[in-house]
Amino acid sequence: MRGRGWIAIVILNHDDYRYLFGTDRSQPRAIIPFQGPPELVAFTGEEPELRAALAEGEVRVFGSVGGQIHDVVGRLRELAAAAPAEWSADGRYKVGLQMWFHTPAFLIDMFRQVNPQVEVVSSDPIMDPLRMIKEPEELALLTEAQRIAGLGMDRARELLRPGVTAHEIATEATYAMMRAGAEGTSTPIYVNFGVETCMLHGRLSPAPLERGQLALIDLTPTVDGYCANLARTFVLGQPDARQAGLIAAYREIVTTVRAGMHPGATVAQLDAKAGEVCVAHGFGDYQVYGIGHGIGLRFEEPPASTIIPPHKNLPLAEGMTVTIGHTVLAIPGFGGVRFEDIYRVGGTSSDILVDYPIDPVVAV
Amino acid sequence: MRGRGWIAIVILNHDDYRYLFGTDRSQPRAIIPFQGPPELVAFTGEEPELRAALAEGEVRVFGSVGGQIHDVVGRLRELAAAAPAEWSADGRYKVGLQMWFHTPAFLIDMFRQVNPQVEVVSSDPIMDPLRMIKEPEELALLTEAQRIAGLGMDRARELLRPGVTAHEIATEATYAMMRAGAEGTSTPIYVNFGVETCMLHGRLSPAPLERGQLALIDLTPTVDGYCANLARTFVLGQPDARQAGLIAAYREIVTTVRAGMHPGATVAQLDAKAGEVCVAHGFGDYQVYGIGHGIGLRFEEPPASTIIPPHKNLPLAEGMTVTIGHTVLAIPGFGGVRFEDIYRVGGTSSDILVDYPIDPVVAV
Repeated sequence: MRGRGWIAIVILNHDDYRYLFGTDRSQPRAIIPFQGPPELVAFTGEEPELRAALAEGEVRVFGSVGGQIHDVVGRLRELAAAAPAEWSADGRYKVGLQMWFHTPAFLIDMFRQVNPQVEVVSSDPIMDPLRMIKEPEELALLTEAQRIAGLGMDRARELLRPGVTAHEIATEATYAMMRAGAEGTSTPIYVNFGVETCMLHGRLSPAPLERGQLALIDLTPTVDGYCANLARTFVLGQPDARQAGLIAAYREIVTTVRAGMHPGATVAQLDAKAGEVCVAHGFGDYQVYGIGHGIGLRFEEPPASTIIPPHKNLPLAEGMTVTIGHTVLAIPGFGGVRFEDIYRVGGTSSDILVDYPIDPVVAV
Repeated sequence: MRGRGWIAIVILNHDDYRYLFGTDRSQPRAIIPFQGPPELVAFTGEEPELRAALAEGEVRVFGSVGGQIHDVVGRLRELAAAAPAEWSADGRYKVGLQMWFHTPAFLIDMFRQVNPQVEVVSSDPIMDPLRMIKEPEELALLTEAQRIAGLGMDRARELLRPGVTAHEIATEATYAMMRAGAEGTSTPIYVNFGVETCMLHGRLSPAPLERGQLALIDLTPTVDGYCANLARTFVLGQPDARQAGLIAAYREIVTTVRAGMHPGATVAQLDAKAGEVCVAHGFGDYQVYGIGHGIGLRFEEPPASTIIPPHKNLPLAEGMTVTIGHTVLAIPGFGGVRFEDIYRVGGTSSDILVDYPIDPVVAV
């Protein structure tokens, strides 16, 4: 923070809060000042427990939202007054905040309005490098979440029969995963049938599954905040030639991309490898870029090239956890296939966290 | 839009998309221009189905995120060129976007960066009045969601026994609600025991329920995007004097506030009524403001005074759907109570959507 001339990072998000404090709250709020211990921001009733949980640092207590906002503003003014003058531009001091999916736009705009003396910057440049490389405890939680995703997929697969609905599969898979210890899912469960397997638009297909259709299921349970991501495509009955072609191509994409997933590689390079496979299988026109993404306490972490295009050039590093299988290989108007798993980028090769089978043909 | 000199509203959120188009997509994207029909923004694979779904209007199709961004920028430039010059300030034209919880801050910042000729304004002043008064079809969906919340609460209540975990209750209640037709929940389920009933920090209490403890459960299933909100507090066994006092006070808060919930009333006025009850019961020091909030396709809609303090002065109108019971009445270090339901603001009185019983004492 000092190197960048930031007076504080303000924490408003579950993932950062959990990463820094090892626990979570309904409304995570904290200030990490450029000097001194961290400060939790809390309402009156939360004080005793938070004070007990915080080994070092201060708990600032407020009775109302208005009081909380007012006091955070005051605290940032104090920090600005204590900071070297050369950190400011036009009298304004930088404060880092996360801007990702769970930071509402209105909250940042409100923060800017009540802190006109502050320049809001994304906290990513400090937080991302801290979080990208997963500690052994984090890897264990990610692996457990992915194992639970496998239990959900087992349950989903055994329900595949003519007439089953996407909602029934989502209901039963969620129940199986929560019973196994998942808190819930980090995204809605995706269960798509037939032509909808090629689309991004449908969370749950409205019409029941029919014999001969593709079924694409994407499960995202969380354990202690850590996010799993397991996607499988099935065919109800023997695949036809196009279905078989898509399945064979995607299997090869996964193998090829995994072989290229080493420190220094970028998603752009992995996409190029996937592209060669697509072309070889006659699907060159249908490639969608962004074959993988980082995953951890956020469902999509850097590299997240389908959200932030420049991330496609971010080099992988040993210890990062990254999916392969994020983008669908689909024939428009027909259907699509993908198999998504999580891998730990290793020194020379990448290990799959949970080796869940790719076994797409469901007998009917 | 013309009255405000906005060239477009850009839709990025499920709730607005569903409200305007009657359906939903994984990544809802649309432009509502100041003239001409609405335009859906889609990826290649989504085109056929979206074109079929859109009675009138245009589907703009892109193969990549970069292409999509580029073309939306171009379309806004076209609209700016077609708009009256007096709508612009310094050559910049206003575009409305939702900034609420599900609009990520980075997306708005990215939008501002790629559209420097545009001034981003909150779309609330146009969208909120459209959406605040619920149509009969909307009321039916809210009522169905709240009925399903009741089924979840039935299941939760029957599990209350010494040793049950919050996670088990959340798992079984979620399953009961999804089996009854809920898509999922709009917020994490809250199940808090003992002293944690007075806190906002715990989604699920870590320690199992004990005899004599308070248990506070808040369920938020959704049906076709419409959000339920049902909270109940229970005591495992006969309540002690303080528990009984909190329960009696909250029952009276609900009755009193409901009687004051008519067109023109504000949350500040309802809070004042709740405050009189708190004082009469000797809990004057423990009142938390923000006794209710609007609810619909968003879990918290205007008035949302615990998020946007000025909303406390927003007058209610007939046909709005508003909760009573949002804030807890808690003795710090001991525990808290609330009973939350949804009401439709009527001309002279307000009807509860689903009259779920308040029956807090659980025999053990």
